[in-house]
Amino acid sequence: MDLAYSLDTVWVLLGAALVFFMQAGFAMVETGFTRAKNAGNIIMKNMMDFAVGSVVYWAFGFGIMFGDSMGGFIGGLDLFARNTYDFGVPTFAFLIFQTVFCATAATIVSGAMAERTKFISYLSYSFFISLIIYPVVGHWVWGGGFLSELGFVDFAGSTVVHSVGGWAALVGAKIIGPRIGKYTKDGKAKVIPGHSITLGALGVFILWFGWFGFNPGSQLAASGPENAQAIAGIFVTTNLAAAMGAIMSMIITWIKYGKPDVSMTLNGALAGLVGITAGTAAVSPMGAAAIGGIAGIVIVFAVEFVDHVLKVDDPVGAISVHGVCGALGTLLVGFFAVDGGLLYGGGFALLGVQAIGVVAVAAWTMTGAFILFKVIDATIGLRVSKVEELEGLDITEHGMESYADFQLKAIVHE
Amino acid sequence: MDLAYSLDTVWVLLGAALVFFMQAGFAMVETGFTRAKNAGNIIMKNMMDFAVGSVVYWAFGFGIMFGDSMGGFIGGLDLFARNTYDFGVPTFAFLIFQTVFCATAATIVSGAMAERTKFISYLSYSFFISLIIYPVVGHWVWGGGFLSELGFVDFAGSTVVHSVGGWAALVGAKIIGPRIGKYTKDGKAKVIPGHSITLGALGVFILWFGWFGFNPGSQLAASGPENAQAIAGIFVTTNLAAAMGAIMSMIITWIKYGKPDVSMTLNGALAGLVGITAGTAAVSPMGAAAIGGIAGIVIVFAVEFVDHVLKVDDPVGAISVHGVCGALGTLLVGFFAVDGGLLYGGGFALLGVQAIGVVAVAAWTMTGAFILFKVIDATIGLRVSKVEELEGLDITEHGMESYADFQLKAIVHE
Amino acid sequence: MDLAYSLDTVWVLLGAALVFFMQAGFAMVETGFTRAKNAGNIIMKNMMDFAVGSVVYWAFGFGIMFGDSMGGFIGGLDLFARNTYDFGVPTFAFLIFQTVFCATAATIVSGAMAERTKFISYLSYSFFISLIIYPVVGHWVWGGGFLSELGFVDFAGSTVVHSVGGWAALVGAKIIGPRIGKYTKDGKAKVIPGHSITLGALGVFILWFGWFGFNPGSQLAASGPENAQAIAGIFVTTNLAAAMGAIMSMIITWIKYGKPDVSMTLNGALAGLVGITAGTAAVSPMGAAAIGGIAGIVIVFAVEFVDHVLKVDDPVGAISVHGVCGALGTLLVGFFAVDGGLLYGGGFALLGVQAIGVVAVAAWTMTGAFILFKVIDATIGLRVSKVEELEGLDITEHGMESYADFQLKAIVHE
Repeated sequence: MDLAYSLDTVWVLLGAALVFFMQAGFAMVETGFTRAKNAGNIIMKNMMDFAVGSVVYWAFGFGIMFGDSMGGFIGGLDLFARNTYDFGVPTFAFLIFQTVFCATAATIVSGAMAERTKFISYLSYSFFISLIIYPVVGHWVWGGGFLSELGFVDFAGSTVVHSVGGWAALVGAKIIGPRIGKYTKDGKAKVIPGHSITLGALGVFILWFGWFGFNPGSQLAASGPENAQAIAGIFVTTNLAAAMGAIMSMIITWIKYGKPDVSMTLNGALAGLVGITAGTAAVSPMGAAAIGGIAGIVIVFAVEFVDHVLKVDDPVGAISVHGVCGALGTLLVGFFAVDGGLLYGGGFALLGVQAIGVVAVAAWTMTGAFILFKVIDATIGLRVSKVEELEGLDITEHGMESYADFQLKAIVHE
Repeated sequence: MDLAYSLDTVWVLLGAALVFFMQAGFAMVETGFTRAKNAGNIIMKNMMDFAVGSVVYWAFGFGIMFGDSMGGFIGGLDLFARNTYDFGVPTFAFLIFQTVFCATAATIVSGAMAERTKFISYLSYSFFISLIIYPVVGHWVWGGGFLSELGFVDFAGSTVVHSVGGWAALVGAKIIGPRIGKYTKDGKAKVIPGHSITLGALGVFILWFGWFGFNPGSQLAASGPENAQAIAGIFVTTNLAAAMGAIMSMIITWIKYGKPDVSMTLNGALAGLVGITAGTAAVSPMGAAAIGGIAGIVIVFAVEFVDHVLKVDDPVGAISVHGVCGALGTLLVGFFAVDGGLLYGGGFALLGVQAIGVVAVAAWTMTGAFILFKVIDATIGLRVSKVEELEGLDITEHGMESYADFQLKAIVHE
Repeated sequence: MDLAYSLDTVWVLLGAALVFFMQAGFAMVETGFTRAKNAGNIIMKNMMDFAVGSVVYWAFGFGIMFGDSMGGFIGGLDLFARNTYDFGVPTFAFLIFQTVFCATAATIVSGAMAERTKFISYLSYSFFISLIIYPVVGHWVWGGGFLSELGFVDFAGSTVVHSVGGWAALVGAKIIGPRIGKYTKDGKAKVIPGHSITLGALGVFILWFGWFGFNPGSQLAASGPENAQAIAGIFVTTNLAAAMGAIMSMIITWIKYGKPDVSMTLNGALAGLVGITAGTAAVSPMGAAAIGGIAGIVIVFAVEFVDHVLKVDDPVGAISVHGVCGALGTLLVGFFAVDGGLLYGGGFALLGVQAIGVVAVAAWTMTGAFILFKVIDATIGLRVSKVEELEGLDITEHGMESYADFQLKAIVHE
């Protein structure tokens, strides 16, 4: 028993380290897919949402998420977790694992609001996402709250982590408005290319790598043959979904645009990963391939819908990848779960519960984010000035250049 | 026993995650050492060979490699592996570990054929390498085929993985011909510098890091004192070989060219790693240092030979690193194996078997690759047009620029 | 018992792999924060100090550090470690873990002396740091030497690894003098910006990730509930210190300079990590947050002090991050250790011992480094010529360009 406890601890800590490293992945994706003049600012936001989130979640968020439930809605205010033996592994192993998950939700928002958000406003809202918006959802699903009571399945966080980040991103990006030059006078969306596809792609590889901590680590145990079989299966479903996501996005863009699109294919891999995260332990490899493939198709249309129809400017596609595909993947568990899924003769019960969870989390997150961003906008202001935006946030917010030795192209001021 | 099973599973999955991450290493090495105008295309190829390979290997390759042997040559057609208890660890742990190995073999080819290969042709041949060329070799050595019967030693794949990639790369690069501007009219090789030595170097560090999954993970077990001693020893031999490879390449280039060459030294580390992969569990640290050092010397001459004598244009040195040093390292097991090596009084038996394995794999791979590339060339065509090559594959194949904000040097059209 | 041995081995090897990967982090930080014209040279130095250090430490350093003590000062000359069962894990697991630690100390120096040091001189001094300067300190603290006898607490190497690197860097940077153009005629320090904040930041993320091997791995065991609790606690203290370091550096620079400084905030995270390394297993999360926060404040003033008062040119802040914060973190154990710390009623005994250790290591390292750099300077010469420095070390030392496709800004020759 002692060794099982230790092995499980090692597994959870390994998962935590890998999920931490996803922060580097997000940082590279978000800088790579945006402009050179804002690279340092984006780096800074990614570093600081993790730093602030780590402290806030330790002090408050963890207790809100896992403390004794008040009516299934929110945990008790258990400040500053102690290293007990409560969670099958040391509490601190569980704490650090949950901390890096919380930080993932927070960091998703920064991509959608990149290149125009005040740094201090960013700090403020990532503080509140880590403090309350994310932990409450976490309580509902993983902390013994009402969705867990209903039998809602979100193994590693398609909804809890990714859709929370994605819906908050949607609200934030809508409220702050598009970047200067993103839409023509007659409302046509233009492409603002990122400054380094290599760094962006490196970020995607890092995220894929980190997902081998995110999903298998969420088993929270490796000891005993059942856990061993489970984590091995989760590796396979995770990888197949990512692969099929990339493949399908590539094919769809090839058909639609005549050429296979690089950044969309990279996003397709992420879409597959986000999509499988809810059902990674509940579906077969075949089901995982299907979920990943569907996510890889949907992401292409979702990005276009957000860009052209909603006219919400999301520089890195975070809303579509994390919000849409997070919700999608959660719903698809209702179809593909080997135990209870519609396609496996399980009827509509699970699908219904999944839909309730998706809607409840979206409603809570969007409401909370709406209030949060409106308050910030009315007080310290959400957006930098037009001059600052044109000059770039590296210079204006931080007094530095990210690529001091390189000749950059003249920035066209509209 | 239960916990041993779990610990072994954790070990194999950790290895799989690290080897997956090597895909990021290959992507960075291959983009860094080639030109900016093709960076997105190379990224896309690296991403997609892994995605396609993951699906193909799951569906077909794994069964061909590990299914019941038909005459020691090929495994049965066992489609879509199931998660049984057959391999000492969950089948799915073994499957994902083997998947990331298969993808390594496939991705090696892209480096040698970079900057001039049609994207759709690349997809096609990486499909067939994952489907049949690699799995057959894998069956011979690791799936109970005829080379394993002979006692051929290739612990983690100097021959199975690296030389397969390297020989396929040789055939492909020969058939497709050199890049425009690589050779002068009188046949003198010119240097076409890469666009980012920092990304290339980052890739080498990532590969070295990933090799700590590649080699020690191939033990497939960590439980019990013997396995613990073994994996610790493999860490040490792997690291020493890499270190000595880098050191010797640096020294040789310093002597030959008057300055220590950066990209050759980086390749020297990879040469040492490829070289030790066959014998990592069979040689002493001293033997590993010798093998790595020899590989680090040979790589310099191999690159020159391929470049100046064979006049095969290999932008990243993949043929020399993976083909030559893979074969070399496999042969050197015949000298340095503590048990059976010539230098340890073992006679010529092992060396002979190693030579048979190297030759058999080279013959199969080159024959298969020859047919494959010739068929592709005759049908969809292997190479982009001259105009496309000059303009760069990012624009022509994918309609994008990888570094939109940076001023690039004018591309000299010959 | 067998499985405990295996699990501990897995833990130590996982730690070793993560700490190895920190080499990539150092390489990215050091290149990112310096100029494009020297990027290849810096990569080369980072690669080669690890390669040379791996061989030297295996052959000599390990024996000096862990061989039978001669008077508590130095270990016996036990050449070429053998794979015995002496250290609770296989000797080779312990060896590789110690090897990557040694390489960390050596590589720190290269940052402070970047952009002006001869490559061959760099090789020479990193050879001697790995051979003797580091192993002797290691013997004092971890090899049973006199500081371990005194009860000196340096769990994972704030002093043993980081301050050794930092103090050697201080001596080296002082002796070699500032880069051309760093100080005006009247002694005012100028900022020489780095060439890629994105690569620098990626390096910091990699280092933070690797620190989850550095600190928890130093427990050297995971088996049994006590070890499991310990490593989980170390994850939490490590992460909180890093987070608080970044937060406090950001706040201090915001106050001092009016804008939150990106590179200083990144260094603040590293300062927190270096600071917590000594006490990571001895302090509470609250104590860790305090130590990290203090380090994050001190680093800002330390960088200014080194730059403006000492007028030592340290391009990446290595002296302040590793030397100052390494010493600081070691001393703060005397205040914050739950068992024996001043703030926990432990009196001055521990603090006194910590101070003795810090001073002894600083004295030994600075003396050794002084002799080493002076001898090198008098024989092969430490510094490149003025012309070479202006042109950049990539061209003059290695005959290559790191960014051949990019238009770089004209280098202003003073």
